[in-house]
Amino acid sequence: MSKNRVEAFTDAVIAIVMTLLVLELHQPDGDTFTAFLGVEHQFIIYLISFIMLAIYWNNHHHLFQIVQKINGWTLWANHLLILSLTLFPFVTSWVSDYPTSLAPQMLYGAVILLTDFSYFLLGRALINANPNNSSMQQLFRGYRKLYFTLFINCLALLLGWLIEPLLIIIMDSLVLILWVVPEKKVESYIE
Amino acid sequence: MSKNRVEAFTDAVIAIVMTLLVLELHQPDGDTFTAFLGVEHQFIIYLISFIMLAIYWNNHHHLFQIVQKINGWTLWANHLLILSLTLFPFVTSWVSDYPTSLAPQMLYGAVILLTDFSYFLLGRALINANPNNSSMQQLFRGYRKLYFTLFINCLALLLGWLIEPLLIIIMDSLVLILWVVPEKKVESYIE
Amino acid sequence: MSKNRVEAFTDAVIAIVMTLLVLELHQPDGDTFTAFLGVEHQFIIYLISFIMLAIYWNNHHHLFQIVQKINGWTLWANHLLILSLTLFPFVTSWVSDYPTSLAPQMLYGAVILLTDFSYFLLGRALINANPNNSSMQQLFRGYRKLYFTLFINCLALLLGWLIEPLLIIIMDSLVLILWVVPEKKVESYIE
Amino acid sequence: MSKNRVEAFTDAVIAIVMTLLVLELHQPDGDTFTAFLGVEHQFIIYLISFIMLAIYWNNHHHLFQIVQKINGWTLWANHLLILSLTLFPFVTSWVSDYPTSLAPQMLYGAVILLTDFSYFLLGRALINANPNNSSMQQLFRGYRKLYFTLFINCLALLLGWLIEPLLIIIMDSLVLILWVVPEKKVESYIE
Repeated sequence: MSKNRVEAFTDAVIAIVMTLLVLELHQPDGDTFTAFLGVEHQFIIYLISFIMLAIYWNNHHHLFQIVQKINGWTLWANHLLILSLTLFPFVTSWVSDYPTSLAPQMLYGAVILLTDFSYFLLGRALINANPNNSSMQQLFRGYRKLYFTLFINCLALLLGWLIEPLLIIIMDSLVLILWVVPEKKVESYIE
Repeated sequence: MSKNRVEAFTDAVIAIVMTLLVLELHQPDGDTFTAFLGVEHQFIIYLISFIMLAIYWNNHHHLFQIVQKINGWTLWANHLLILSLTLFPFVTSWVSDYPTSLAPQMLYGAVILLTDFSYFLLGRALINANPNNSSMQQLFRGYRKLYFTLFINCLALLLGWLIEPLLIIIMDSLVLILWVVPEKKVESYIE
Repeated sequence: MSKNRVEAFTDAVIAIVMTLLVLELHQPDGDTFTAFLGVEHQFIIYLISFIMLAIYWNNHHHLFQIVQKINGWTLWANHLLILSLTLFPFVTSWVSDYPTSLAPQMLYGAVILLTDFSYFLLGRALINANPNNSSMQQLFRGYRKLYFTLFINCLALLLGWLIEPLLIIIMDSLVLILWVVPEKKVESYIE
Repeated sequence: MSKNRVEAFTDAVIAIVMTLLVLELHQPDGDTFTAFLGVEHQFIIYLISFIMLAIYWNNHHHLFQIVQKINGWTLWANHLLILSLTLFPFVTSWVSDYPTSLAPQMLYGAVILLTDFSYFLLGRALINANPNNSSMQQLFRGYRKLYFTLFINCLALLLGWLIEPLLIIIMDSLVLILWVVPEKKVESYIE
C-alpha cells in the first residue's frame, strides 16, 4: 500500500494541532504589556508543546523516508500517534491554566508518554511491514535514545507525583534536546 | 480524472474533524483529578468518535487504492460522505452533554447511519466509474459486512427509541469491531 | 510553475472552511428534539453553504485538470477566491442568526458574488497563463452559465434590498442547480 | 530528503491560519449595517493579515520550486517560520480589539519581524543544503528587497514606540507592496 496518504494525513493533523494550540491562548485582558505578561507563562508552555510537535513531525518525516511498505497495523499505530497528538491542545490549555497543579501536569506528562509510546509502536509496525529493510532495522534495533526518552517520561510522572508537579514539564522538555537534531543515520541512508 | 485530489481533500477533512473533536471537550472545572473525572465520560465518547473516523479513513484509503477512475457522481458521493463526517463534532458534543437523552443519541445514530450509507453510495459510484475493475466488483458485490452494519445502525435507532437511548452508541460501537481489521482483500489485490 | 501546490493549498482551505461551518452551529439549548428544531433553520443554511463550497471545489478541481501552467496572476486570482471562501463561516453564521434581516443577507449575497467573480478572474488568469490551451479557451469563451450566475447574484442583491431579504439566499441557491453536474466538457477533454 | 512533505505541511499550516483569522472576527452585535460597521476596522486588519499570509505563501512556493534538497536545518528554519505564522490569529485578534494601543501593535510588528527573519534564515538554510544551486545563490545573495523589509520592520517598531502605534501596521503594510509581484527571477529560472 502506498505510504503517501499516511504521510499527508499525519501532516494535516500536526499542522492543525500546531495552529489550534495558539487558539487556546487566552486573549490578554487589556491593551497593555502588563496584560500580555499575564499570559506570558502560557506562551512558554505553548512554545514547549509546539517544539514537541515539530520534533514529532521531523521524526515522522525521517521515519517514512526509509520505509517502502505499510500495512493495516501501521495504520492503527499511526492512528494512535494521531490520537495522542490531537490531545495536545486540550492538555496544553489545562496545564497553562494551572501550571503548578498535579492533575494537569500528570495528564500532560501522560499524553507525552502515550505519544512516545505510540511512536515506538509505529516503528515496530513498520519493521514488521518491511522485514527486509535494513535501514529500519538499524534505526530501531536498540534505539537507546527512544528507550531513554520513555524512561524519562515515566520518571517525570513519578517525581512529579512525589515531589513537585512542575518537574514533569521540565524533565519532558529537557529530554527533547536529544531529539532536536534529526536522525543523521536517516539522512545518510537516503544519500 | 485524477483521484489524488479527492483523496487529499478527504484526508484534510477527516484530519480537521478528528482534531476539532477535542476542541469541543470542556476544560475541566478546576485543577484536580476529580475535576477531570467530571469530563471523563466525554473522553469515552470522544474516543468512540475518533475510532469511527479512523475506521472511515482506513476504508476510504483502501477503497481508493483499487480504483483508477472517478467521475462526477463519485465527487458527489464523496461530498455526502464529507458532509456527514463534518457533523461528527456537533453530534459528539451534544451527545457528550446529554449521554442518556433520546434526541442527542438519535441524532448521533442518524449521522453514523448517514455516513455508512454515503460510503455505500461511494462504492456504487466507483463501480459505475470503473466498470471493468474486478477488484471493486468483488469487494462491493454482496458486501455483507456493510449491509449488516447498515442494518445494525437502523436497529440501534429503533431500539434506542423504544427501550434505552444509550443502546444507540453501544450498538454502533460494537459493530465497529467488524471494521477494525482493514480489508485483507484489498491488501492482497495490491500485492 | 507547478500547479500541484495551488491545488493542495486550495483543497486544504475548502476542507477547513467546510468543517468550520459546523463549528459555528449553536449547540441545541437542551436535550430534546424541540431544542434541536430551534437550530434547524441553521442546518438548512449550513447545508446551502456546504453545497456551494462543494460546487466550488468540483469546479476548481475540473478547471485545474485542463491546465498545465500557472503564473503570478493565477496565484493572486486564486488567493482572492480563497479569501472569499474563508469568509463563508462568518457570513453563514451571521445569516443563521438573522435569516430575515437585510444586512446579513446582503453580506451573504456579496460574499457569494465575490466568490463567483474571483472564479471568473481565475479563469481569465489561467487562459493568459496557457494561451495555447484550446480546452481552456473553449470552456471560458462565452461561458454563459458563469455570466448568468453573476447576473443572478447581482439581481438577488437588488431584489433582496428592494423587496425581501430572504430572496438573496433563495435565488443564490436556485442558481446552484446549474452547477450541480460538473462540466461534462472537461471530463470529455480529459478522456 | 524530499521537499514535498515540507511544502505540503507548510501549505496546511498557512491554509489553517488564513481560515482561523476569520474565526477570530467578532460576530456583529445585531442585524444591521451599523452593527457590521462596528466590526469593519477588524475586517481591514483581517485583510492585511490575509494578504501578508498570501505573500508568504507565494514566496515559499517560489522558493521551494528552485530547490532540490533539504536537510535538518531547513526543517528547523521552516518550523520557525510556521511558529511565527501560527501566531498571526492571536496577534491579529489582539490588535483588532485595540488598534491604537502600543502593546498590541508592538506584538503584531514583532511577529511580522520574526516571520520575515525566519524567511531569511530559511533562505540561508536552503543555500547551505544546495551549495551548487546557482538560482538560490542569485536570489538570496544581496537580497536587497528582503534586507529593506527587515529594516522597515525594525523602523516601524521604533517609530510605533516613539511616535504613534498605528505606524507599525501602516509601515508593515506599505512595505508589502514590494512583494505583491512574485519573484520574476524564479519564474524565469523555471522556464
